[in-house]
Amino acid sequence: MLHTVIMAGGSGSRFWPQSRRALPKQFLHFGSTRTLIQETADRCLSLISPHRLWVVTGAAHSKETSRQLPELLPSQILVEPCARNTAPCIALAAIRLLSADPEAIMLVVPADHIISPPEAFQDAVNRAVKFVESQPEALVLFGVPPNFPSTGFGYIQRGESCASDGTTLYKVQAFKEKPNQLTAARYTACDEYYWNCGIFVWRADAIMKAIAEFEPEIFQGCERLKRVAGTAQWDAALAEEFPAMPSISIDYAVLEKAQSVYVLPAPFQWDDVGSWQALPRLLSHDSDGNTVAGIHCGQETSGCIIRGTEDHLIATFGVKDLIIVHTPTATLVADRRNENSIKELTAEIERRGLQAYL
Amino acid sequence: MLHTVIMAGGSGSRFWPQSRRALPKQFLHFGSTRTLIQETADRCLSLISPHRLWVVTGAAHSKETSRQLPELLPSQILVEPCARNTAPCIALAAIRLLSADPEAIMLVVPADHIISPPEAFQDAVNRAVKFVESQPEALVLFGVPPNFPSTGFGYIQRGESCASDGTTLYKVQAFKEKPNQLTAARYTACDEYYWNCGIFVWRADAIMKAIAEFEPEIFQGCERLKRVAGTAQWDAALAEEFPAMPSISIDYAVLEKAQSVYVLPAPFQWDDVGSWQALPRLLSHDSDGNTVAGIHCGQETSGCIIRGTEDHLIATFGVKDLIIVHTPTATLVADRRNENSIKELTAEIERRGLQAYL
Repeated sequence: MLHTVIMAGGSGSRFWPQSRRALPKQFLHFGSTRTLIQETADRCLSLISPHRLWVVTGAAHSKETSRQLPELLPSQILVEPCARNTAPCIALAAIRLLSADPEAIMLVVPADHIISPPEAFQDAVNRAVKFVESQPEALVLFGVPPNFPSTGFGYIQRGESCASDGTTLYKVQAFKEKPNQLTAARYTACDEYYWNCGIFVWRADAIMKAIAEFEPEIFQGCERLKRVAGTAQWDAALAEEFPAMPSISIDYAVLEKAQSVYVLPAPFQWDDVGSWQALPRLLSHDSDGNTVAGIHCGQETSGCIIRGTEDHLIATFGVKDLIIVHTPTATLVADRRNENSIKELTAEIERRGLQAYL
Repeated sequence: MLHTVIMAGGSGSRFWPQSRRALPKQFLHFGSTRTLIQETADRCLSLISPHRLWVVTGAAHSKETSRQLPELLPSQILVEPCARNTAPCIALAAIRLLSADPEAIMLVVPADHIISPPEAFQDAVNRAVKFVESQPEALVLFGVPPNFPSTGFGYIQRGESCASDGTTLYKVQAFKEKPNQLTAARYTACDEYYWNCGIFVWRADAIMKAIAEFEPEIFQGCERLKRVAGTAQWDAALAEEFPAMPSISIDYAVLEKAQSVYVLPAPFQWDDVGSWQALPRLLSHDSDGNTVAGIHCGQETSGCIIRGTEDHLIATFGVKDLIIVHTPTATLVADRRNENSIKELTAEIERRGLQAYL
């Protein structure tokens, strides 16, 4: 049976001050009344029944996850004792699913991306599921055809094609790190490259087999955890085993090395909403190029990304290309053209002992 | 006896969003723990006893005045039913003082200016008082020697000198409206011009006599009010008479026309704090030229005027020459180089029906 695992491990630094350590990006909404994690769940609940929806998140965020997704039972929220990147996260989810359903197929999705339309996503998942039903070893990645030369996303290069039941997939030829502008333009110009959107479909036993082969430390930790699954020792065992696992992405740990890795071209719009700078390409803007959420009154204001709350006025005059974010505890005003501004600022805030605002 | 009349009729539009209709500039503090009106009262209470301190303010601001100046009895707060500029304001105070003290000398001071040091101010007042004691018809203005060619202040041109008891005063030759840059430079270069700081010393009966001569409408309204002073009909009479008076400044109504008008060179630092742009010349700034109040963390930030609250972080990156003001209900981000930005913005806010934020 198909299960969905939502990876909700985001730490919330890149959308400061709206995202906070206590409220990372997946819990915010961007141009919708539903938050990113709610939209992610909504998209998947057309494919599966609620009791097959799982979320992996940090201890600090399990309560907010539960509040935003009230359809989940506490047992469906898998709590990581610490952040260990996607490989241990996926392994943890896989052993939990296998204990409930040895034939489980996993759809793995990040909690904090924007995808549309949902129907195209659901259609792509259905085709991927059919494929892994016919090829139990297959590890399927979704590849989004790039519609602009992004230097902020990783790319997948496709290899030989492989038709199955009317769907064309490709063996993965290579993973490409975030490219420079020239390379990104080349990738975008030909049809051989896809954005790696971090969405996967595979049998839980297949990914565990691959993890056993390429990341034995993670596998062995999981084996020890399996023995205490469903007992009172689980929490203590997890607190011991999980932090000891290598912090590594599933791409780097397994997918770049495994044999049966396929990319399925996914005809949906996708964005990982990696920074404030992403918003203008995702949300509508006014005739002066301002992307606004909240109450704003501006004059001689252009190219700004403005985010406020529903009971606070942001007024601007004579400003251009700024990111202006108001929250009750902190206000950000930054040059929009510098992608590193938030990272550098939050580091400086930490250095000055102002962590309470992070 | 000397009395002080603090004119606190400010409407609070130029320091939006920190000043509000309900909390104009005189109630804010700039580089001090005391607000402007408190500092004004402090300066004068070295000269007079508290029961000779009077404040003229609008109905909307009498409560805050009373809160900030708890030494005042309710009867010492004279409430204007509406704003009518300084001539009716001063006339109202004069008749009130005369009812208590027919020999009253009035020191008239705006509530929302910055003056230092207080001792120089007090010394200048003492000298002016001595002068009007010897010349009962005299209307004395304080003239501040300009220390930069301001185009934002009015100027007084001095005429013939007139020594009295060791103090040199000058007959006022002419009042000069806010000059252009070239004229301001000329005024500043010679010693014949002073900033008109709107501080006056005169006998209450002398200013009423001049008002009778040049603004009979105001005088007659005051005569009718005098008849009901101290009775239950006062409020109703004031509500009828005061709005009917012409809205005009004491300078334009009387001082430009009267004979016995003198300027006393006042050797104190003075500023009317007319806009956010005034702050850098009044308050200290950091090595990048930022004038900051509140909690600020900035990188690549220069020439900014930043004002927040004590429990809210303002973080900036890659910005220059901005005014950034955070309050719990509104945030302003504006180009510092445009002096009209606040006026235009607040007009636009009004047009859009967002008056609740003004």
